[in-house]
Amino acid sequence: MEQKRGKLLVIGLGPGAAEQITERARRAIGESEVIIGYNTYVDLIRNLLTTQEIVGSGMTEEVSRAQEAVRQAYLGRTVAVISSGDAGVYGMAGLIYEVLMEKSWNPLEGVQVEVIPGISSINSCAALLGAPIMHDACTISLSDHLTPWDTIAKRVEAAASADFVIALYNPKSGRRTRQIAEAQRILLRHRSADTPVGLVTSAYRDRQRVVLATLADMLEHEIGMLTTAIVGNSSTVVYNGLMITPRGYQRKYALDSDEQTLKPGERLKAEAEPWSLGAKE
Amino acid sequence: MEQKRGKLLVIGLGPGAAEQITERARRAIGESEVIIGYNTYVDLIRNLLTTQEIVGSGMTEEVSRAQEAVRQAYLGRTVAVISSGDAGVYGMAGLIYEVLMEKSWNPLEGVQVEVIPGISSINSCAALLGAPIMHDACTISLSDHLTPWDTIAKRVEAAASADFVIALYNPKSGRRTRQIAEAQRILLRHRSADTPVGLVTSAYRDRQRVVLATLADMLEHEIGMLTTAIVGNSSTVVYNGLMITPRGYQRKYALDSDEQTLKPGERLKAEAEPWSLGAKE
Repeated sequence: MEQKRGKLLVIGLGPGAAEQITERARRAIGESEVIIGYNTYVDLIRNLLTTQEIVGSGMTEEVSRAQEAVRQAYLGRTVAVISSGDAGVYGMAGLIYEVLMEKSWNPLEGVQVEVIPGISSINSCAALLGAPIMHDACTISLSDHLTPWDTIAKRVEAAASADFVIALYNPKSGRRTRQIAEAQRILLRHRSADTPVGLVTSAYRDRQRVVLATLADMLEHEIGMLTTAIVGNSSTVVYNGLMITPRGYQRKYALDSDEQTLKPGERLKAEAEPWSLGAKE
Repeated sequence: MEQKRGKLLVIGLGPGAAEQITERARRAIGESEVIIGYNTYVDLIRNLLTTQEIVGSGMTEEVSRAQEAVRQAYLGRTVAVISSGDAGVYGMAGLIYEVLMEKSWNPLEGVQVEVIPGISSINSCAALLGAPIMHDACTISLSDHLTPWDTIAKRVEAAASADFVIALYNPKSGRRTRQIAEAQRILLRHRSADTPVGLVTSAYRDRQRVVLATLADMLEHEIGMLTTAIVGNSSTVVYNGLMITPRGYQRKYALDSDEQTLKPGERLKAEAEPWSLGAKE
């Protein structure tokens, strides 16, 4: 008897609120026979579950969850691997592929994989802060668990010097408190002390906390493992409690004017919005 | 008669497919009285519309759309401003706030604003390519329409030297073809010629195209205004047509082994997944 081909659905649930889940992610959960995810994620989507078997919800180790997911898929089952944020950003998608590569997996014949994108932390936190990532931005994880600190420090330095908006993931944990202070020191060499820093903890969850700090005083605020810190660039301003980075470095528009001084050919059309659905090549 | 307080719902629709829209974005469209967006976006959500008035769908200029949205909200209406991707990434959220700031807007008394996050291009393109952004990454727009090229070039240089995965938004348009070639030259000074580059055009739309290139040959492939280019870091590999960046620089795990050599205290627990819903501080 030929075995059914297994399938791995690697799903990002977004920040946490059920409302921030995409339709595709919901439907993928519905299609699955097995759910693998840490118990808190499973709780989040429990009302979407029907007959699915819940596996490995006690596994706190991501590698073990990835291995178990692949094992279940190799049995011919449709497996939903769920995590928060986007599964492709410091998440389960890469681990699943790494486990499959170790098994010399062939995508054409072996189990199928679909990565289903979700809203990443930089985007959900930015939405709560105002509009801080309107210009070039980067994400840096301050965890030196798998990456040498020198590599991380070099990235903070490079991003600071080139005026990126910087989202610091994983800024601090119980035992690990040194990195955020060192990052702050590096940043202060390149940016003014009053650079706005948004600290968002548990975005779109019950214990959501949004704090607007500065580069100088950011460490005086509570920062934990569920906090993402967004550091503004040299143009970022604070307006009535909102953190806003203007999009252009040379604002060519008079925003309070109906008449724009640019010639039509220079205007913010598809040129400045190329990802627009309406842009023509 | 006291006027109803207006509301601006600034909505990111994600890459384009209806399935990739969040529940909150759908509901916000339902709550609105007025829809403002370029006509192609409006077409995308037409089946979600009931009695909403569609305004400014012919306005190709983002500043004009932002001004019109604010004008409508000041009339006391609930206005949905729709765009693709995440409205907070090179999008409408910042423009809306900039227009409001020009009007000395007071968030406590004036119109209300809610930014509703959507899946950004880097995330949707990554999901189609494999798992290229599992480690520190940045987005850089190559459009020098509002930003001096020197600033952009400096960012490409900094990101290349610090081994970021780099998503190039707006790499090229009909008249603007020089920037992607200059970016490639800068990148080649820091990364090997065979560095994987994923080129994704019209992700999750009818004319979706996913191409896996290298840093050396990327310009031989079709790149347009709707293309996002994701440049791998020094660890990025290609496996059976998929682009994968391993998460850790020092892989401490034997992925094919049930027994991990790390002590429990060092394992990939909440420490390495702090944005996990289950993480405890």
